[in-house]
Amino acid sequence: MNTWNRKDLLGIDGMELWEIEMILDAAKAFKGVGERSLKKVPALRGRTLVNFFVEPSTRTRVSFELAAMRLSADVVNMSTSASSLQKGETLKDTAKNLEALHADMIVLRHSSPGSCRFLADRLQASIINAGDGAHEHPTQALLDSFTMREHLGSLAGKKVGIVGDILFSRVARSNIHTLRKLGAEVFLIGPTTLVPRSFESMGVRVCHCLDDVIGELDVINLLRIQHERQRKEYFPSLGEYTALFGLTKARAVRLREGCLIMHPGPINRGVEIDSDVADSARSVILEQVTHGLAVRMAVLYLCAGGKGVPA
Amino acid sequence: MNTWNRKDLLGIDGMELWEIEMILDAAKAFKGVGERSLKKVPALRGRTLVNFFVEPSTRTRVSFELAAMRLSADVVNMSTSASSLQKGETLKDTAKNLEALHADMIVLRHSSPGSCRFLADRLQASIINAGDGAHEHPTQALLDSFTMREHLGSLAGKKVGIVGDILFSRVARSNIHTLRKLGAEVFLIGPTTLVPRSFESMGVRVCHCLDDVIGELDVINLLRIQHERQRKEYFPSLGEYTALFGLTKARAVRLREGCLIMHPGPINRGVEIDSDVADSARSVILEQVTHGLAVRMAVLYLCAGGKGVPA
Amino acid sequence: MNTWNRKDLLGIDGMELWEIEMILDAAKAFKGVGERSLKKVPALRGRTLVNFFVEPSTRTRVSFELAAMRLSADVVNMSTSASSLQKGETLKDTAKNLEALHADMIVLRHSSPGSCRFLADRLQASIINAGDGAHEHPTQALLDSFTMREHLGSLAGKKVGIVGDILFSRVARSNIHTLRKLGAEVFLIGPTTLVPRSFESMGVRVCHCLDDVIGELDVINLLRIQHERQRKEYFPSLGEYTALFGLTKARAVRLREGCLIMHPGPINRGVEIDSDVADSARSVILEQVTHGLAVRMAVLYLCAGGKGVPA
Repeated sequence: MNTWNRKDLLGIDGMELWEIEMILDAAKAFKGVGERSLKKVPALRGRTLVNFFVEPSTRTRVSFELAAMRLSADVVNMSTSASSLQKGETLKDTAKNLEALHADMIVLRHSSPGSCRFLADRLQASIINAGDGAHEHPTQALLDSFTMREHLGSLAGKKVGIVGDILFSRVARSNIHTLRKLGAEVFLIGPTTLVPRSFESMGVRVCHCLDDVIGELDVINLLRIQHERQRKEYFPSLGEYTALFGLTKARAVRLREGCLIMHPGPINRGVEIDSDVADSARSVILEQVTHGLAVRMAVLYLCAGGKGVPA
Repeated sequence: MNTWNRKDLLGIDGMELWEIEMILDAAKAFKGVGERSLKKVPALRGRTLVNFFVEPSTRTRVSFELAAMRLSADVVNMSTSASSLQKGETLKDTAKNLEALHADMIVLRHSSPGSCRFLADRLQASIINAGDGAHEHPTQALLDSFTMREHLGSLAGKKVGIVGDILFSRVARSNIHTLRKLGAEVFLIGPTTLVPRSFESMGVRVCHCLDDVIGELDVINLLRIQHERQRKEYFPSLGEYTALFGLTKARAVRLREGCLIMHPGPINRGVEIDSDVADSARSVILEQVTHGLAVRMAVLYLCAGGKGVPA
Repeated sequence: MNTWNRKDLLGIDGMELWEIEMILDAAKAFKGVGERSLKKVPALRGRTLVNFFVEPSTRTRVSFELAAMRLSADVVNMSTSASSLQKGETLKDTAKNLEALHADMIVLRHSSPGSCRFLADRLQASIINAGDGAHEHPTQALLDSFTMREHLGSLAGKKVGIVGDILFSRVARSNIHTLRKLGAEVFLIGPTTLVPRSFESMGVRVCHCLDDVIGELDVINLLRIQHERQRKEYFPSLGEYTALFGLTKARAVRLREGCLIMHPGPINRGVEIDSDVADSARSVILEQVTHGLAVRMAVLYLCAGGKGVPA
């Protein structure tokens, strides 16, 4: 029997398959908690979790906050604008201070790739990566795979398309690692500027034409177009993007029956996905949100010292 | 025996008298909780409430937050600037996401009239209106009537004056509905631009001269002048407003003995009310704040599935 | 036996020696709570604490928030930008409203000296000063003395140097009062503009040359240079400051063996202290943070009605 022995969740790259499966199995055990009227278990009572968001994200923050509350932990939120980082303090000093306050776990979102590992190497507190630059966003990938498994069972041999801005996406990176380990075949789909051929070295297929492969996919995962921060030189116009890579109604007709439609949210309705398609029966976008909570409960539980799937 | 069966509190308009009375009676039962050293009952333990404020309001947010805490619910706060709405997501998507996180109750403040009903029709979660544009602010009206009942007993036949910007006030609208159902006689008092004659169709009296009626009132409720957002064309200068409609010391002398002085806060001292008058024995302004907590506990308790006044 | 009978902690000036010692002894009793896996005692269960920060401070807010959580109190955060103060309400009105919501304790940070006393005189709620202008920051001074006592035992006759901007520092003021009462000899060290001779009337020594006294000190407490708000006319350049008053590596060699190095944080590495010196074995800077939590638990416990050191 394998025993969990990581204090941190920094990324999927470098994790063992059994570790990923243990998180997914623990998430399955925790999934039921959210469906009860009394949505709480005492697992982390008296532990302190700090949500430390140096990049803003309401969704992910709230998801971790609720996950921790449901494990009966105490939660403190710190966001960038409030933080001492503005006074010129280093990330390490701020984190060391949180540890000195006996924070057991620090959920960190930060714009710098590697910031989570940097802290994990220097602190005794558990560091949970809630997104570090374009590097990884492991809990997003885990909840995506959890959702696929709920519908498709084993992912071995399943064809999963990830569409959009792969180059700058931590969600894509974490998904590629997770899906490869779970045996899925991964298709990266998008314009050449955002999906360079070099990704093939990760053992995935690179496609620059969605229409070429759409009929093969078991899952289509549409990444959010961050048009507020997209760099112009990499990116066609929104209209052109939608025409080529958007999951329009016309294009959705060509999906296989039973193909899951996923999106990490928040959706740009009419851009990466048509509004009706997003709300259609094959869309599991809201399930992803629900599963995010279960996956985060599992991650917090294990990194806080749980040895395996709770009984 | 009537049994509560609403999941939402969207507005007073459309509610039955017995529903209003059930909230007020439940609030009476909860009022004592705040006076104890251990200010907590386990009624909503393990339930999740999201305070979702798309318009800022510290007071109302804190009041709901404390009400939920005293019922042992878990509370998560989301404010506008942090919210995904800034990323262009629709209100419905954000709310659907909150529901997917198993939020049992969403307290919504929003600048659009009807936004609460819009969500209530689309979500299984309870929606509690904490102010939707110029439409309704039901818990404010309920706490106002609760306060009047504590001092005056039945409101049947009591004369209640509401002074100020009625036209754009959700507090006034919710109060008119509540007071009419409870049998009070309502006087709307203010300049013609802000209190048009058309309000008479709601069964109230419209007065453009406070001095004409001040001696008759059992209650005078002074609305806050929102001078930061008042549109100039509707509004006299602040000095002129105070001269005609402010509860100055000189004017307060003409109130009936026992007339209650109310204000939803925050007060503009020296504008709608003289500072000494606001702090005088007849002022119940701070009691309103205290009662707001009891009323919000009652509303959360009932909409979360309480069938009636707690034993 | 002395019995605690203050509802507020406004400042060290005016406190009795036994009161200071009772807080330090209670903090010693609470220190162990943070080291346990279940970091919670039920002492303040069902009490409500409001963190009311009109000046931003993540650290102090989080420290009070965690202290209250560990005593099982409910905590609500209000920060300036969210507060009604922006709508022109007075501080007193806001605080009266918090009291009307049955806040048992209000932790206030405010830019005006005396703001805490102003509220304490007008409210039944406990007021805990978390920094009021340049007046006092009593919990910082208490945690500083707690840390010194942990290492040095009695402070009687110990030589404590406080270096930096004394003139505008509430931390310095509270430390001077605490250290004098505890019998330490206090050296204020800094440029003449920031450490005027007039401080000698407080029973301390004023030095304008750190090198003259550095070899004598048992403790060196380096205040943060607030270069974002420092007024230019009082202040040399940062480089000149560091050259004369920074604890550089070269200067640190001249400290006595066993001299404690302290800093209230956040550190400006390379300005008031060299980075290696801040991280050296003699530095107790992170212990100060840990002890802040214990001291704040003690203060909240006593002001909420604890009669003395918990058993």
